[in-house]
Amino acid sequence: MKTNQSWGGRFAEGPKEAVAQYTDSQSYDRALYAQDIRASQAHARMLGRQGIIAPGEAQLLVEGLDRVREEIRSGNFVWKPELEDVHMNIEARLTEIMGNVGKKLHTGRSRNDQVGLSFRLFVADRLETWRQRAAGLCAVLVQRATEHANDILPGCTHLQPAQPVSLAHHLLAYAWMFRRDALRLTDCLDRVCISPLGAAALAGTTYPLDPQSVAEDVGFSGIYGNSMDAVSDRDFVLEALFDGSTIMMHLSRMCEEIILWANPAFGFVRLPDSYATGSSIMPQKKNPDVAELMRGKTGRVYGSLMGLLTTMKGLPLAYNRDMQEDKEGFLDADKTVEASLRLMAGMMEELTFRTDRMREACKAGFLNATELADYLVGKGIPFREAHHITGQCVAAAESQGKGLEDLPLPEMQALEPRIEDDVYAILDYAAAVRRRETPGGTGPQSVAAQVAQLRTWLAGMDGMTR
Amino acid sequence: MKTNQSWGGRFAEGPKEAVAQYTDSQSYDRALYAQDIRASQAHARMLGRQGIIAPGEAQLLVEGLDRVREEIRSGNFVWKPELEDVHMNIEARLTEIMGNVGKKLHTGRSRNDQVGLSFRLFVADRLETWRQRAAGLCAVLVQRATEHANDILPGCTHLQPAQPVSLAHHLLAYAWMFRRDALRLTDCLDRVCISPLGAAALAGTTYPLDPQSVAEDVGFSGIYGNSMDAVSDRDFVLEALFDGSTIMMHLSRMCEEIILWANPAFGFVRLPDSYATGSSIMPQKKNPDVAELMRGKTGRVYGSLMGLLTTMKGLPLAYNRDMQEDKEGFLDADKTVEASLRLMAGMMEELTFRTDRMREACKAGFLNATELADYLVGKGIPFREAHHITGQCVAAAESQGKGLEDLPLPEMQALEPRIEDDVYAILDYAAAVRRRETPGGTGPQSVAAQVAQLRTWLAGMDGMTR
Amino acid sequence: MKTNQSWGGRFAEGPKEAVAQYTDSQSYDRALYAQDIRASQAHARMLGRQGIIAPGEAQLLVEGLDRVREEIRSGNFVWKPELEDVHMNIEARLTEIMGNVGKKLHTGRSRNDQVGLSFRLFVADRLETWRQRAAGLCAVLVQRATEHANDILPGCTHLQPAQPVSLAHHLLAYAWMFRRDALRLTDCLDRVCISPLGAAALAGTTYPLDPQSVAEDVGFSGIYGNSMDAVSDRDFVLEALFDGSTIMMHLSRMCEEIILWANPAFGFVRLPDSYATGSSIMPQKKNPDVAELMRGKTGRVYGSLMGLLTTMKGLPLAYNRDMQEDKEGFLDADKTVEASLRLMAGMMEELTFRTDRMREACKAGFLNATELADYLVGKGIPFREAHHITGQCVAAAESQGKGLEDLPLPEMQALEPRIEDDVYAILDYAAAVRRRETPGGTGPQSVAAQVAQLRTWLAGMDGMTR
Amino acid sequence: MKTNQSWGGRFAEGPKEAVAQYTDSQSYDRALYAQDIRASQAHARMLGRQGIIAPGEAQLLVEGLDRVREEIRSGNFVWKPELEDVHMNIEARLTEIMGNVGKKLHTGRSRNDQVGLSFRLFVADRLETWRQRAAGLCAVLVQRATEHANDILPGCTHLQPAQPVSLAHHLLAYAWMFRRDALRLTDCLDRVCISPLGAAALAGTTYPLDPQSVAEDVGFSGIYGNSMDAVSDRDFVLEALFDGSTIMMHLSRMCEEIILWANPAFGFVRLPDSYATGSSIMPQKKNPDVAELMRGKTGRVYGSLMGLLTTMKGLPLAYNRDMQEDKEGFLDADKTVEASLRLMAGMMEELTFRTDRMREACKAGFLNATELADYLVGKGIPFREAHHITGQCVAAAESQGKGLEDLPLPEMQALEPRIEDDVYAILDYAAAVRRRETPGGTGPQSVAAQVAQLRTWLAGMDGMTR
Repeated sequence: MKTNQSWGGRFAEGPKEAVAQYTDSQSYDRALYAQDIRASQAHARMLGRQGIIAPGEAQLLVEGLDRVREEIRSGNFVWKPELEDVHMNIEARLTEIMGNVGKKLHTGRSRNDQVGLSFRLFVADRLETWRQRAAGLCAVLVQRATEHANDILPGCTHLQPAQPVSLAHHLLAYAWMFRRDALRLTDCLDRVCISPLGAAALAGTTYPLDPQSVAEDVGFSGIYGNSMDAVSDRDFVLEALFDGSTIMMHLSRMCEEIILWANPAFGFVRLPDSYATGSSIMPQKKNPDVAELMRGKTGRVYGSLMGLLTTMKGLPLAYNRDMQEDKEGFLDADKTVEASLRLMAGMMEELTFRTDRMREACKAGFLNATELADYLVGKGIPFREAHHITGQCVAAAESQGKGLEDLPLPEMQALEPRIEDDVYAILDYAAAVRRRETPGGTGPQSVAAQVAQLRTWLAGMDGMTR
Repeated sequence: MKTNQSWGGRFAEGPKEAVAQYTDSQSYDRALYAQDIRASQAHARMLGRQGIIAPGEAQLLVEGLDRVREEIRSGNFVWKPELEDVHMNIEARLTEIMGNVGKKLHTGRSRNDQVGLSFRLFVADRLETWRQRAAGLCAVLVQRATEHANDILPGCTHLQPAQPVSLAHHLLAYAWMFRRDALRLTDCLDRVCISPLGAAALAGTTYPLDPQSVAEDVGFSGIYGNSMDAVSDRDFVLEALFDGSTIMMHLSRMCEEIILWANPAFGFVRLPDSYATGSSIMPQKKNPDVAELMRGKTGRVYGSLMGLLTTMKGLPLAYNRDMQEDKEGFLDADKTVEASLRLMAGMMEELTFRTDRMREACKAGFLNATELADYLVGKGIPFREAHHITGQCVAAAESQGKGLEDLPLPEMQALEPRIEDDVYAILDYAAAVRRRETPGGTGPQSVAAQVAQLRTWLAGMDGMTR
Repeated sequence: MKTNQSWGGRFAEGPKEAVAQYTDSQSYDRALYAQDIRASQAHARMLGRQGIIAPGEAQLLVEGLDRVREEIRSGNFVWKPELEDVHMNIEARLTEIMGNVGKKLHTGRSRNDQVGLSFRLFVADRLETWRQRAAGLCAVLVQRATEHANDILPGCTHLQPAQPVSLAHHLLAYAWMFRRDALRLTDCLDRVCISPLGAAALAGTTYPLDPQSVAEDVGFSGIYGNSMDAVSDRDFVLEALFDGSTIMMHLSRMCEEIILWANPAFGFVRLPDSYATGSSIMPQKKNPDVAELMRGKTGRVYGSLMGLLTTMKGLPLAYNRDMQEDKEGFLDADKTVEASLRLMAGMMEELTFRTDRMREACKAGFLNATELADYLVGKGIPFREAHHITGQCVAAAESQGKGLEDLPLPEMQALEPRIEDDVYAILDYAAAVRRRETPGGTGPQSVAAQVAQLRTWLAGMDGMTR
Repeated sequence: MKTNQSWGGRFAEGPKEAVAQYTDSQSYDRALYAQDIRASQAHARMLGRQGIIAPGEAQLLVEGLDRVREEIRSGNFVWKPELEDVHMNIEARLTEIMGNVGKKLHTGRSRNDQVGLSFRLFVADRLETWRQRAAGLCAVLVQRATEHANDILPGCTHLQPAQPVSLAHHLLAYAWMFRRDALRLTDCLDRVCISPLGAAALAGTTYPLDPQSVAEDVGFSGIYGNSMDAVSDRDFVLEALFDGSTIMMHLSRMCEEIILWANPAFGFVRLPDSYATGSSIMPQKKNPDVAELMRGKTGRVYGSLMGLLTTMKGLPLAYNRDMQEDKEGFLDADKTVEASLRLMAGMMEELTFRTDRMREACKAGFLNATELADYLVGKGIPFREAHHITGQCVAAAESQGKGLEDLPLPEMQALEPRIEDDVYAILDYAAAVRRRETPGGTGPQSVAAQVAQLRTWLAGMDGMTR
């Protein structure tokens, strides 16, 4: 095997194939080709502006890189595994096309800062997509909420029916989660969009570079303050993986509810055919496969986060080869997070809510117990005591297989004489929902306010040109 | 055993002791007593302002809570395990002191939103402390950097000597990491400082509460948009644990270097006696125990993050008892992160850098090879070719057990005739450091600029009154 | 502060309090006192047998250690934080009691191998308890299964009703999991019960020790083959934490089902009062708190595993202080795993299965579809085709809101003429369960065989004297 | 798009492409084709033996499957993504070849138990390979140990030189770790090699199958006791991932030492060219890339373990689609673990130990301090006191920049009069190694015994036909 790795000047023999395979990255870092070329073009322009290479040479490099990009995009590029990574493949092809000028591209930079910039550009592009997808899912939830402003279902704590809530309110709980995810990504992007270029291998260079202008050229806000930090920082990937983990956690909660609700005991939803599958032996089943798989895929994103945290633990300054492990975990997480957000939006758009089943379910579970307790407090009874009396009423109703609203007044009065006939209006489920108008509550005005707030935010997202 | 849990109205029998022990939280959530009281006082004042209780009652509650706090602070409070958690302990004592008025405190709230607010206040207090500690460590590093602006050591990549760097620059790489941690905490605090009060159990309440004013009273910026999200959101703890994990990861890298440098083969540092310990059988050893233990403790903070991510996976809305598991992991992480930052600052203050050993080490490892390559590029040789020639020079020097600077000119010229006598000035190690003045580089002006930037930021931190 | 750490001979000053607190272990490793004393007594006896100390001295040491144990057991022992760990506390007290003879106890060993042996003894004791608890839970499940051999419920895949199964069979699925856990622990114990004593600090000693006899004295099967491995191996804790994680995962699945089944939509179980709690605002709720908390606590055991795996990554030989972090994670996991297994056994003993609700639920969900498919195959129709026809029958029945058993024969025959009147016997739910007598199937004979196998295994567990 | 999934009988429309891509597994589960065919052939033979299909049909199915395997092996098989997984692809092709007989293959089984058996066969094959690779690495270490029985280096604790040890002993510490890994895999294989076939979808079948004979046919030891456990158990993958994590942890420790030792400050090893790479900007560097990357890859295997543990948390019985996530994590871990063990064996074979540098390093660090302490104990001085005196001697020597062996006798006697001239023989480094002959110690006889024990074990491994 011929030794043509970029560092081949010194070794008497080439690395064995097994090592090449083990250390290879071009099989997956090809995904970064567009960002690598973007970064290289910005670097070339800066080299020209600074007079480090001739302006004409800079122009030639930019054009040559355009051509390489086109070759890759169109599938005409020949990837060479022996060239190790996407960066060397591109540079080698550039030199093939342009001759010696191509070799000048790498002036004043090292693979350490080059890879760092390309990968940050890639992560930034992907996180921006996540942000849009999170907003898209949020928008679907807001839309579905407006359709179901007057439908009620049992709100649960401990998966026990607790109080009736509106379906709109329930759906908006998730909308707020995904909005929070989008905001978290915005903060994360501030830390991703920092250019390490100029750090070279670890110490900076002797060339009169202008790294700030490269950062601006690629749309980044600034540069690293310290070159050793620049080439060995992977916080931005970790933070992206954490944000992705939180997104998946939120999705897993929603999936859990869809799976529960699709079970006939609940029967709260009808799955769209496109998002369900059947069983090879039980033809009648409509399985919530997409929701299950999405819930299951939460694990792999957590795993990528944990993996890179482990990898980074205890590494001395500056770059260590261990850090090459930053990419595959992110690529896998990106595929999972992006598709999961997109599919959940699609599934939520098409899901049918069986609001009759939901309404019916409110009758089980004494969902109006809190109403009674509050009613008693309104009569001047201290909270803890009201709570105790309500408990006794529930026990009485349960022993008779009734709802509280079906308990005769004398029975209630036997437990607490201050209960009067007006209690029955209080015990109505839909009315209970309508009364909860604290900011953020399930009442219709609160829900309308939530919809308005989320729409304002979504409108802002649309207009963003990050 | 008597049944005196707050929900005891219904059960025929009390839970067994084993269950009580398993579900207990007061043994650890006592740590939140000050925040619980602060939140309750704000709630009481709001109840008064809104006319839900009489203004005089509100005042009595605030004073009663002051008294309970004083009892706890002074160690005169009798904790009752059978009262389950810190919140019930405080409320029970309040009622003991004040009679029926005490029972009115809980009006319009549930333990779900109450705990949520208390814990957010606690997390906010602790994260603010972390931020200060991160800044404190950063300040120590900046100070030590100014003391060692002119000392050089081998900068490594792959733990192989690569290029000489200034010790100041090396130390500042860490300073930037801890600044980034502090900034990440600032963003996180924006999401922690949101009040869930008003959400009640899950759906809001029928009382005319003013939750925004409670938020402002405790110094928070706003309230949750949705009550079901409010009582079941634990993103803020997860994000805190992630930020803590990143801090520990940074510390583990620093620890690794201290441990390496304390080994006699490097001999770059002398450990302060207070931060080292001995061996029971090998009296001569000065072991970097604090650095080792800190590196090891990285695992437990990662573990707390992974634990809570696991706990939250797949939970349906709204509150589930699983979420009680949010506290112990954070309490443990808090203890670890805070102490680690503090001890590292102390250790860095007292650490002696053996700059003679560092300087000496520069001579091994051909740290000036890059200089030669750049020199050749300066002679018009394309980068990749310059690199190849340098490799040949290194091979020649290594075979003679010499440094590049000791290679006779004719030998170099045999490999590349364009090399001239001026090469030797280029090969000087300290000069190599001085030449790297790209922004963020190791050169003295870049280092001075870094110090100035960090000091400006630190000055801002000092003045913050978050 | 006076310097009285065991390594104090060399330092000019004592470590600061903060360091002492950070590096302290006696606050938690006290839990190991009985094992430390057991190990020390075995060591003392061996020193006497080998003539390294006088036989009378060995006897004195053993008696002195008995006395120290009694002091600790009775609560009369004064723990001194400044003595760092349980081992130094015990040795210091021994010397206080016995004078210079006490100091001879440590002859030929180091804290590295001493702690290693004490901790392995502790882990072995705890894993044996886990094993018994897993078997105990298994026994309860077997017992409950025998009570419900004839009750049926919908067996689910994808949380969709799939085929009817017997409740006994469902419960036994978990019994087999916990048996597997117990067997895994047995294998793990083989690797825990290996003594590191004799390794001293890392290289062995010059004393003519007989480590194998110490191992036998404490009930271990052998000794480590290599002293450097002996003092730096923590595989046994990792494996214990993994086994604990798997146990918690199994428990979390059971908890999930209990929580689902306690929801009124299912209504399959009535929670025992002792294992449920109420809500402070909704008095009627009977919340499955224990099941929820147990499911949630899965996270912390996973976290401990992940934490120690992280800690051990990349540590050079031999002992490093990082390894002190092996204990707290295990202590926490032990508390969680042991109590969880115990509480689950208690809860399963008292849980009421609402078999009427289960039977009723079988009617929804076309649980006899597979029966029809098999029936068609019995008529000579290829499997995939039979499956397709069944799907058409299900679609027909569903559109009429009927079960398959209610579909008139002509309608079925219109879809497949080979269907005859005998199909209705096939479509009976209980009969479907009775027919599944493949080994491991849900049929009554298979279930009886499972019970017999598990009882045989449990009988063997009882007789074990490990 | 035509709907040709196996469950297509019911849906009005086919799943969208995005869903197909999200739920697809054939892109990676192709790796299991050989095991799937092996399992299907065993199933077919059993169907024939039991008279469920005609013996001639069974023979035809076996031959047809041979032909499919040959098509896949030779690259002539056309994979169809729309057929979802490897199993459906194979069955569809079989039916294409054989017509209706092909459809009979699936009689009496479901994809749930089919996939379960195929994957267990695959995992078993891979774990057996891991076992062989672990033994192979162990063998290399034993071989290198025999070459370096008389070379000494500083044995470290806390990465501080502690006592001299033989290089053989140091290498054997790792050999014992990998032997332990192999033994752990043997135990794990006992739990992997259990057949779930016969469980069908979840409840067993009505066909008179003989699952035990299928298990024996594929070389497994038995069958699952319970069908619901059989289709939803993933313990075997988790345990495999844990075993792989432990292997990577051990490798990461070895990598750490190689990386340290390759640094010129240590200079203990010379890396084989094939296992090192260079830098694009620093031509002189010989970077331990393989060791770094291997250390870094520890993270991804931990991540796969944590991912699947997360996925399995809280899943109700029986099969859930989440469980499909068991494969990719294992496939990735398998690739990593197998290659890492193989490459480490290769690297250790070619690594050059610079024993001169090791010997030299013993002189720094007072490696003979323990010898002095033991010498003093031999003079009748209690251990803790001897330790204190040694500390004073070390302090004296250190202040003069000397080793203990260079301290004049009178100086030592001033600190402790019982020290005599014979102390200098005791202070010799190589002699110190030779004296440590406790079982497992670093002395030459102990090392020879270790080599013998490991070789006996390796000989047994060779002969295993598992």
